[in-house]
Amino acid sequence: MTARCQTVNALVNPTGSMNVLSSREVSQLHDTSQTGLYTLFRQCALAVLSCDTELDDARELMALYSNFDIRIIQEHRGLQLELVNAPSCAFVNGELIRGVRQNLFSVVRDILHLHSELEAHGLSNLDDPHDITNLVFEILRHANAFRPGHPPNLVVCWGGHSIGREEYKYTKDVGYQLGLRGMDICTGCGPGAMKGPMKGAYIGHAKQRIHKGRFVGLTEPGIIAAESPNPIVNELIIMPDIEKRLEAFVRMGHGIIAFAGGPGTCEEILYLIGILLHPDNECQNYPFILTGPESSRAYFEQIDAFIGDTLGEEAQKLYTIIIDDPEEVANQMQKGLKEVTRYRREHNDAFYYNWKLNIDRSFQHPFEPTHENMAQLNLHSHLPAAELAANLRRAMSGIVAGNIKEDGLANIQKHGKFKLHGEPKLMKRVDALLQAFVEQQRMKLPGSHYEPCYEIITE
Amino acid sequence: MTARCQTVNALVNPTGSMNVLSSREVSQLHDTSQTGLYTLFRQCALAVLSCDTELDDARELMALYSNFDIRIIQEHRGLQLELVNAPSCAFVNGELIRGVRQNLFSVVRDILHLHSELEAHGLSNLDDPHDITNLVFEILRHANAFRPGHPPNLVVCWGGHSIGREEYKYTKDVGYQLGLRGMDICTGCGPGAMKGPMKGAYIGHAKQRIHKGRFVGLTEPGIIAAESPNPIVNELIIMPDIEKRLEAFVRMGHGIIAFAGGPGTCEEILYLIGILLHPDNECQNYPFILTGPESSRAYFEQIDAFIGDTLGEEAQKLYTIIIDDPEEVANQMQKGLKEVTRYRREHNDAFYYNWKLNIDRSFQHPFEPTHENMAQLNLHSHLPAAELAANLRRAMSGIVAGNIKEDGLANIQKHGKFKLHGEPKLMKRVDALLQAFVEQQRMKLPGSHYEPCYEIITE
Amino acid sequence: MTARCQTVNALVNPTGSMNVLSSREVSQLHDTSQTGLYTLFRQCALAVLSCDTELDDARELMALYSNFDIRIIQEHRGLQLELVNAPSCAFVNGELIRGVRQNLFSVVRDILHLHSELEAHGLSNLDDPHDITNLVFEILRHANAFRPGHPPNLVVCWGGHSIGREEYKYTKDVGYQLGLRGMDICTGCGPGAMKGPMKGAYIGHAKQRIHKGRFVGLTEPGIIAAESPNPIVNELIIMPDIEKRLEAFVRMGHGIIAFAGGPGTCEEILYLIGILLHPDNECQNYPFILTGPESSRAYFEQIDAFIGDTLGEEAQKLYTIIIDDPEEVANQMQKGLKEVTRYRREHNDAFYYNWKLNIDRSFQHPFEPTHENMAQLNLHSHLPAAELAANLRRAMSGIVAGNIKEDGLANIQKHGKFKLHGEPKLMKRVDALLQAFVEQQRMKLPGSHYEPCYEIITE
Amino acid sequence: MTARCQTVNALVNPTGSMNVLSSREVSQLHDTSQTGLYTLFRQCALAVLSCDTELDDARELMALYSNFDIRIIQEHRGLQLELVNAPSCAFVNGELIRGVRQNLFSVVRDILHLHSELEAHGLSNLDDPHDITNLVFEILRHANAFRPGHPPNLVVCWGGHSIGREEYKYTKDVGYQLGLRGMDICTGCGPGAMKGPMKGAYIGHAKQRIHKGRFVGLTEPGIIAAESPNPIVNELIIMPDIEKRLEAFVRMGHGIIAFAGGPGTCEEILYLIGILLHPDNECQNYPFILTGPESSRAYFEQIDAFIGDTLGEEAQKLYTIIIDDPEEVANQMQKGLKEVTRYRREHNDAFYYNWKLNIDRSFQHPFEPTHENMAQLNLHSHLPAAELAANLRRAMSGIVAGNIKEDGLANIQKHGKFKLHGEPKLMKRVDALLQAFVEQQRMKLPGSHYEPCYEIITE
Repeated sequence: MTARCQTVNALVNPTGSMNVLSSREVSQLHDTSQTGLYTLFRQCALAVLSCDTELDDARELMALYSNFDIRIIQEHRGLQLELVNAPSCAFVNGELIRGVRQNLFSVVRDILHLHSELEAHGLSNLDDPHDITNLVFEILRHANAFRPGHPPNLVVCWGGHSIGREEYKYTKDVGYQLGLRGMDICTGCGPGAMKGPMKGAYIGHAKQRIHKGRFVGLTEPGIIAAESPNPIVNELIIMPDIEKRLEAFVRMGHGIIAFAGGPGTCEEILYLIGILLHPDNECQNYPFILTGPESSRAYFEQIDAFIGDTLGEEAQKLYTIIIDDPEEVANQMQKGLKEVTRYRREHNDAFYYNWKLNIDRSFQHPFEPTHENMAQLNLHSHLPAAELAANLRRAMSGIVAGNIKEDGLANIQKHGKFKLHGEPKLMKRVDALLQAFVEQQRMKLPGSHYEPCYEIITE
Repeated sequence: MTARCQTVNALVNPTGSMNVLSSREVSQLHDTSQTGLYTLFRQCALAVLSCDTELDDARELMALYSNFDIRIIQEHRGLQLELVNAPSCAFVNGELIRGVRQNLFSVVRDILHLHSELEAHGLSNLDDPHDITNLVFEILRHANAFRPGHPPNLVVCWGGHSIGREEYKYTKDVGYQLGLRGMDICTGCGPGAMKGPMKGAYIGHAKQRIHKGRFVGLTEPGIIAAESPNPIVNELIIMPDIEKRLEAFVRMGHGIIAFAGGPGTCEEILYLIGILLHPDNECQNYPFILTGPESSRAYFEQIDAFIGDTLGEEAQKLYTIIIDDPEEVANQMQKGLKEVTRYRREHNDAFYYNWKLNIDRSFQHPFEPTHENMAQLNLHSHLPAAELAANLRRAMSGIVAGNIKEDGLANIQKHGKFKLHGEPKLMKRVDALLQAFVEQQRMKLPGSHYEPCYEIITE
Repeated sequence: MTARCQTVNALVNPTGSMNVLSSREVSQLHDTSQTGLYTLFRQCALAVLSCDTELDDARELMALYSNFDIRIIQEHRGLQLELVNAPSCAFVNGELIRGVRQNLFSVVRDILHLHSELEAHGLSNLDDPHDITNLVFEILRHANAFRPGHPPNLVVCWGGHSIGREEYKYTKDVGYQLGLRGMDICTGCGPGAMKGPMKGAYIGHAKQRIHKGRFVGLTEPGIIAAESPNPIVNELIIMPDIEKRLEAFVRMGHGIIAFAGGPGTCEEILYLIGILLHPDNECQNYPFILTGPESSRAYFEQIDAFIGDTLGEEAQKLYTIIIDDPEEVANQMQKGLKEVTRYRREHNDAFYYNWKLNIDRSFQHPFEPTHENMAQLNLHSHLPAAELAANLRRAMSGIVAGNIKEDGLANIQKHGKFKLHGEPKLMKRVDALLQAFVEQQRMKLPGSHYEPCYEIITE
Repeated sequence: MTARCQTVNALVNPTGSMNVLSSREVSQLHDTSQTGLYTLFRQCALAVLSCDTELDDARELMALYSNFDIRIIQEHRGLQLELVNAPSCAFVNGELIRGVRQNLFSVVRDILHLHSELEAHGLSNLDDPHDITNLVFEILRHANAFRPGHPPNLVVCWGGHSIGREEYKYTKDVGYQLGLRGMDICTGCGPGAMKGPMKGAYIGHAKQRIHKGRFVGLTEPGIIAAESPNPIVNELIIMPDIEKRLEAFVRMGHGIIAFAGGPGTCEEILYLIGILLHPDNECQNYPFILTGPESSRAYFEQIDAFIGDTLGEEAQKLYTIIIDDPEEVANQMQKGLKEVTRYRREHNDAFYYNWKLNIDRSFQHPFEPTHENMAQLNLHSHLPAAELAANLRRAMSGIVAGNIKEDGLANIQKHGKFKLHGEPKLMKRVDALLQAFVEQQRMKLPGSHYEPCYEIITE
């Protein structure tokens, strides 16, 4: 604990293109008022700087570095960041690790851009799904996340931030095989299954002499503090909220691999299945693989059964489960990507952004995990599968918030556990699944005690 | 004339980073309605494609290629431009010259960006000088025009688009000496004195093995058709109007050289002098050189006398006149740049943008050259020098419009000549200067007959 | 075993600059006669292609792929290599891993160059130490191994190819800390302690955004088959024999870390100590660290005691032993490199090649490990320390040959064990050391039974 | 004259890869003995430094800078060159122009390499045509002159160093059109027609955003002082003698354009025709264009007639004459290069080196222009065309030496004019041709008086 609290003061020079700010922008970042950006800026910066901290509790992190401060200094060659009481783990002999430095400036870039988009349009006014899709596009483009010439090769890896040693090694092995085949990696940019595939792919790239491999980390302000971007991430992008982050994953990624995880991973799987169930997306052939080592076989059988029971056989057809075979995972994904390439080419759809994927309003609209919203979720098996998937997705999203997000933790502390109501048969299955996450220590990082933030209430 | 009209149809792949457009942006560029961008887009694109056309009459160009069309095509690797009946001079064996291609995509970038800024803020609402300066900054930054690490080395070259062979050669010689000393060039990106320094500097860079030399062309929609960017320009930037273009010149450039020219060059000189006369700018030490070959000695003596007579001795101290000595010009400029570097370093002012230069509202506000506005210009010697400079600048600006801009030409055709009123003594000097421009064929490209668009009326 | 024998046929395009061969050179590589290069070429190529094979027995490898063949094909864009029955482990879905491909062409480069040097000078005629040092220089330069501008940062890592899991992880941790501090790695390019530091440093470089990190592998024809270069090696260099390889290590490297290892590592340590004991090298301050995890503490104490007992206290002062502290190792090395930088700067010695280091003839001359030469080694404690170090180095070199090299293995099979004679007290210490290597499974890869190739005979 | 003699002392850092010399190599370059390299090194270095000197007389240059000296200094980052009393024209404000600097280090590279080749093989022992071709290949490869992936696009431009203003402008125009079509340029690297095409192509490349265009200058020690490499040359290669330089031109170049010139150009034309007349080269389809402005029409008619008269119609079919049409020249060349590409692809001949071209011994063997050798040249129309071409080539070569080379000038001064004997009819034509060169001031740079170095004697 004490080691963690060692801090460093430093002046940091920028990297890349967003090293030039107008005087107006500097004021916005320094503005500590309600409408100013300082609070958000400080929080995201601290998250990036805590790259090696083993915490998944945003409030704990904030408390630990309560006297952390960050300022912008105008200088003849451009700008500098002044860091005060920054976590020492981001430094080597007093020098900020360059990967951390780069990600720090991505924070500056995205926070200012989100703010200017907000000023221009007002995020809350975005009702038209097309407008939201355009916004996600513009944020990604502004973050320079498109490589127009490139054939599809960006593989999204989902999975828990809290996984066992064997599972972690497995994610590295899969990453290695993907990297050997030239694929790039996109994850939620935290620890565990978000870090392993990148490390593995990095070594795979090394052997293939790929020096410009992409390690994209997609995050959002609510999650960044709990899942600090690891410095291998060389493209950090902060989306405005969880739903836009999910949309970015599925429109920018060309295929998806889900490793074992807890409610967050479950939310992601439900999101993708819910979307792919839409008739407009029938011909998408979206490569989607669930995989883990032999020891995770039971886990995936349980997930598969849960999906079969709740969303039906159609839903089960949307993914492939592969147990303990990293090479096979990589080969299947490579095959899937070829199919994606062919499809986009034929339909003149952009390689870098899946415009054609239809995302229903129920998956796009931000879900605020208040006690009221959680209690009102309609969880009945008679709902259409896509709708049920949307609601289950929301339930999981709420539980993630209650577990690790700053706001969510505060909410639970104030109002007690979330109450999830629903059809008894369905709720029993949900309960069993969540119970398993608890037992397998997938709710929080191992070592910490887990106190559930929800209660299952059968009608 | 017939040769000029040869046209080519082609599909053009994009270059660089703005090769990714959202579906909304594509619609805007195709929108031929009043509020749509198509007309502006087509006009600027045509100007860029007419890189070798020897015309300086926007209307003539438009008439010549009246059936030119341009469309955007969505494609799996990104976007393409479809050109229909494009001027053949931009092509080599059916392939668009890459420099032209690059500039074409700069047009797309800037037109869309200006439009989105307009939507967000409303250009006309920009009353606060600080807001205008921020806008100029944002446009330049969006065009990727800043090199934060770089020490000051961007030399702005002003001068006529219509100059004689000897003067042209001289601008090349000066450019060569600047290039040999590692300086980059920024001009208004048309022919004549806007092209010569770039060609010279390019060869100078070659000998110094500088492969990433910058050849910045700053233009605006009103001028682009009459002064087609030459393809050596490797950074084309379209500013929204003449005043923001002038502000971009003086804030982005680190030193300025004015070659001989007509009313446009005169406008630029008056603009800079007017600004530098402001007490806040006293310590700027802005490098400013007027230069030409021996044959232009008389010309510069006349300009110098005109400035002395109208704006006084203080104004004359702001520039150095060097006749027929390209090496000396380059050495003086290099010395000046060192001074600029020292000053910015000391005052922590950015190398890439002169934030500290004070530009008075009278130089920032767009001047619309209507007959009424021209007639009401206050031209009296009892005005403070800076104010008189501002008004003389406007007078010259109006004459440029009446000579070569599409709107201006139409205005004159409809309402007759501009009428310039003022103090007899002053007006006589103005008349003499303009008369000299006519005689020296500096009003229009040689060969064409020049019919004055103004009348001098002494009170 | 069967998996290992899967083979692939492929045509391989070259990379880099040595993709252009004259017709004469092609003939030489195809020449299967005594004086031709085919046998050597095929053997080294096979070693590079066996990158993932877990063998350390050259003869076993050759036997396993007895029908492997390699040819050069002339082609309009340059050359191709045709591989027949190549080990499948070097391929991903039929495509040769690019790192392997690059190393394959390094083999072509070095084999041809060594041959042409041999033709020009005759290696055996090189008697003058200065000539040998020049030859090593020329081989390294031809392999493009010098970065003249670069400050000293190349750390040589020595250590066993056969080490335990914990020791391996430790080498990775040290590599990671070196990489985080921007250091490059040079090893003998096989598995174990030659691979771990590279993998670690590669991840360290990733976090520091170092894309051009150097992973230099120095090998020689006798060792390459037993210690296949791993594909992270991005600069493979084949030196003509073991002594020139050792000279290359110490002249090109700027500091040296020795991990635990067997007789090969011991040879390397004795080589460096023997050289540094020379009075001319007194002021070299050569950074030299022995390090391992806690579990290796006993090992290093034994080595240290052996050196103290045989070569004296002076020898012990030449290195630092650090147990279980990768950060401290990296910090000490960084400090040492700064000292090296200072020294070279002061003495105008090249950063990239340590010309000033004096290497005595006894360390430069190739030692042929015949039974006769081994038997005649003078191993007595009354010898000067440097001379005794030279002879002990030769003894270890012979044992390595008898353990894993093709010629050595054949020799032992034919003539029985090497016989090492010497002073009883000294021989007892040697015996104890070697016995420890056997017990710790450092002689051969674990799993294989080890039959000693030597006998200790006390006089 | 005095301006020319201004000198500068400077320390110069190296560029590129040959910035690393062994101590042996440094000694060789400093060795002023008969067998040492100092004299040659100094002479070539001075030639490169005289880039802007308008002299074509090697002896005059040497005399002008008789106190010029050059030394190599060992330094911790590599090497430096110390220049004493170097021509000031190579400097800008005391800094050596980088292009000159680069070429200076090419001199170091080639002089050392030629010397080491000589040591290894002995140039004079090279009797086998295949060995000479291999040597030319090795020199070019060592100079890094091959781009294996590249499709054929290297156009050799021949022509006089002494040409008129209009002819010079024409060579620039042709170069511009070649550059616009992406072609690279190779010349003899002096002034006049060797410089114009490079300057033109450089601007063409600029418009096509080609930043790595090649401007190859092939020279040899005898010619370099008289034809100083201009700094646009970015690959300077020094061949050992005139015949190997010619072989390099025709094997490395993919097509050839000859502008107007004097005896040197004539030598080159005769060389190429002589080779192409060989039956083995029938299917080479070597693109070969003679071209000039309208004012050179008579000149080319005269050359064409001379070839027709002496070598016959077959010879005339080998080239195309194009008058005053740069675009047509470039288009024809582009067509020719496509044909070359097709041919090499089909025959698996390397793109970068024309191995298949047969060069007869009579064109390969060095011709020493002594009075005796010149007098004994067999010049009769009954000889086979190829043989006559070989002898005429030698005659022209001798005259070039007598005009501008150091040795040749000394020879003429000592022994009087060369005497050329031959068949009266033939000699009359030769005389007429040479006489025309004299009248057109093609023998020496204009301004200088030309005193013929030869006498025509009809038998």
